[in-house]
Amino acid sequence: MQPGDRVRVDRGDVTNEGVLLPSTTHDHLVVKLDGGYNVGVDRAEADVEVLESGARDVDGGADAGGGEASEITFDEDLPTISLISTGGTIASTVDYRTGAVTAQFDAEDVLRAVPDLAGRANYRGRVVANILSENMEPAIWRELAEAVEDEIAAGADGVVVMHGTDTMQYSASALSFMLDSPVPVVFTGSQRSADRPSSDNVMNAVCAVEAAKADHAETLVCMHATQSDDACALHRGTRVRKNHTSRRDAFETVGGAPLGIVDYEAAAEAGADGDAADAAIEWNREPLPRGEAGADADLATDLESDVELVKFTPGMDPAAWDYLDGKAGVVIEGTGLGHVHTDLIPRIEALVADGTVVAMTSQCLAGRVCDRVYDTGRDLLDAGVVEAGDTLPGTAKVKLMWALANTGDAADAMGRDLAGELTAESQPWR
Amino acid sequence: MQPGDRVRVDRGDVTNEGVLLPSTTHDHLVVKLDGGYNVGVDRAEADVEVLESGARDVDGGADAGGGEASEITFDEDLPTISLISTGGTIASTVDYRTGAVTAQFDAEDVLRAVPDLAGRANYRGRVVANILSENMEPAIWRELAEAVEDEIAAGADGVVVMHGTDTMQYSASALSFMLDSPVPVVFTGSQRSADRPSSDNVMNAVCAVEAAKADHAETLVCMHATQSDDACALHRGTRVRKNHTSRRDAFETVGGAPLGIVDYEAAAEAGADGDAADAAIEWNREPLPRGEAGADADLATDLESDVELVKFTPGMDPAAWDYLDGKAGVVIEGTGLGHVHTDLIPRIEALVADGTVVAMTSQCLAGRVCDRVYDTGRDLLDAGVVEAGDTLPGTAKVKLMWALANTGDAADAMGRDLAGELTAESQPWR
Ligand SMILES: N[C@@H](CC(=O)O)C(=O)O
Ligand SMILES: N[C@@H](CC(=O)O)C(=O)O
Repeated sequence: MQPGDRVRVDRGDVTNEGVLLPSTTHDHLVVKLDGGYNVGVDRAEADVEVLESGARDVDGGADAGGGEASEITFDEDLPTISLISTGGTIASTVDYRTGAVTAQFDAEDVLRAVPDLAGRANYRGRVVANILSENMEPAIWRELAEAVEDEIAAGADGVVVMHGTDTMQYSASALSFMLDSPVPVVFTGSQRSADRPSSDNVMNAVCAVEAAKADHAETLVCMHATQSDDACALHRGTRVRKNHTSRRDAFETVGGAPLGIVDYEAAAEAGADGDAADAAIEWNREPLPRGEAGADADLATDLESDVELVKFTPGMDPAAWDYLDGKAGVVIEGTGLGHVHTDLIPRIEALVADGTVVAMTSQCLAGRVCDRVYDTGRDLLDAGVVEAGDTLPGTAKVKLMWALANTGDAADAMGRDLAGELTAESQPWR
Repeated sequence: MQPGDRVRVDRGDVTNEGVLLPSTTHDHLVVKLDGGYNVGVDRAEADVEVLESGARDVDGGADAGGGEASEITFDEDLPTISLISTGGTIASTVDYRTGAVTAQFDAEDVLRAVPDLAGRANYRGRVVANILSENMEPAIWRELAEAVEDEIAAGADGVVVMHGTDTMQYSASALSFMLDSPVPVVFTGSQRSADRPSSDNVMNAVCAVEAAKADHAETLVCMHATQSDDACALHRGTRVRKNHTSRRDAFETVGGAPLGIVDYEAAAEAGADGDAADAAIEWNREPLPRGEAGADADLATDLESDVELVKFTPGMDPAAWDYLDGKAGVVIEGTGLGHVHTDLIPRIEALVADGTVVAMTSQCLAGRVCDRVYDTGRDLLDAGVVEAGDTLPGTAKVKLMWALANTGDAADAMGRDLAGELTAESQPWR
């Protein structure tokens, strides 16, 4: 009996059928019922019978034959999608010992856990990390970018990155700057673990795979667009933000509509035969075009790690900024159009004089900074602060890390759009 | 010729009529035209004739008689509204020397600049500060709370606080915790200065005055509800956030509808005769009831200033938190349900062991923190972090400053609702 197997579970008065999910303990099984619910089963109290080997649920739709869960057949008529797992809820199951969720799947497990992915593509699976994304680090962004490049070189027609939701926006930004990809790179995750009836993992994974098969070359985040199970939104990696702690539609494109919307039902149906589900995607803006077949990704993964993001709040202790001395770059999350208390301006001036690139963003999140309007802002410009337009603070931090390592003039780069992070100038007043 | 006077300006080929606004230079005048536009007039190039003294535009609607702009008559039939100015765009005009906006009005000037306030109330004016709100400090929050208490003791039926928009949410939070007021306290500001055709200052001021006359005792922020000039939203001071750098409807109640909506046209009409415009306000939830006539405000303005708000981001230098040692309180803006990198947890444990109250909020902004779900979160709880529910990070900072100075158990207080900042517990998964 292996994860992915179709099983019948008999617990005396109740008998259920479903697919066995990976589980961390030997005393419990987790079974995904046909109705969508997952149940935890105490082995001691149930009879479990394997009805069918799970192998055929994870291949390209053809019969796997061998019955080995790890054996995946290749179907020439299907596109190849690479699933890269970094951890997070989408790659986890319930840890029955503690009652909570830990990261413990590899990409193949994810496939087994989401039988709905069957028939849509040939899958390549790869684990870059197995962490909750609060533990994500810039070094792993680099490994991830390299893994994506590898997968593209190996023939992937699109890449799906399974990632914890907490810091997905930072990782998606990092890959947006590091990679010039000829194929879609689609981040997805899950706000609710697979054992909950309200889990979003199946729909997010299916939409992400369909978005990765589609005709574009964007680096995207694909997550629920609404609280219902009707559509996923495709957000540009550099413009997206997790704006709710727990809602399935937590991710939003800040200051505008998402780049596109995937109609779930249409995508799930069209894609299940291995077809492209392009018609199920409605683009709000023209996406970047796919590169030629076989084209490689361009990669520039260097990062200057000595970059900090600091937030200004009224009454803050100026000593908070002492540790910034000597840093390569600092992104400030100022107030409104991009302000800090006047008393902090000389400190910024000293940082700039010392060679630190200091960029201004706004804790408002939406809208552009514009320091030409108020005295305090003009003093900041005089001090040498560079304005990051409407770049999100978190994205600006990642961008400055990248720009310091990869451009000749990072201060200049912060005022220009490199990867969709900075939208065209508009009137700050409109 | 004084601010508030009705003037005719003759510039050769163009003749305009309007109301003279205060202006900082002797070489230029600013005139609010009847169409709503403000124009700057070079004195050397224009003939200006006073048509009418401005005094009658700033009184309670009765004829001022004397013609002195500073003389304001009292009408017994009208409620008394106290206008307290702290500065910001709403209290500023164009500084022609620099081309930008500086804070330079007192409350009486504001009255003159907004003739539409005439007839709605008897006004008391008071200047607590004259600063852009990025320069706001906790000491001024205290002065402001004391000024509001004074005004209520002196008979104000409602208080309007004119404030810069940048840090209005922090000041409104501070007053929410410090003051137990029997009458409305309504913050308002302006995203666009009075010299711009798109200025929001008149509508915001009129709606704020009408909201301050209305039948409740909430501490509110009153700003444009939409991009049109049709309605203002009334946000609870502890739940509001400036979510756009420049839009007039930048302020939003995070995670829900505003407490109420003021229909501008209805409020402007009903209130102009000195009547209460209550019918023009639609409450989404029941507001706190007005206290008895003549009731005083309760005041508790002590603040522990040694409280910091810090934001966690991937790749941050742990040295950023060195300066927190020995602080009375720390609010963390974590990721998702309330997380930080595992490596930072021992530092938090050490802070708590040392007596620092450490509260967790989320950079998602909407939704509750819940550290019982993931390993990393449970480790945080074990380290002694207190969860601030769905309290906004900025509000949580102000609350912790207040709770440390005014409650016996600040850690406990952070988990309870004190002033509408923490909404009732809901399923973190829903
Ligand atoms: N804290 C988790 C939540 C999730 O998996 O989505 C993480 O970001 O990894
Ligand atoms: N920066 C200004 C903007 C405004 O007046 O609204 C302030 O907050 O004071």
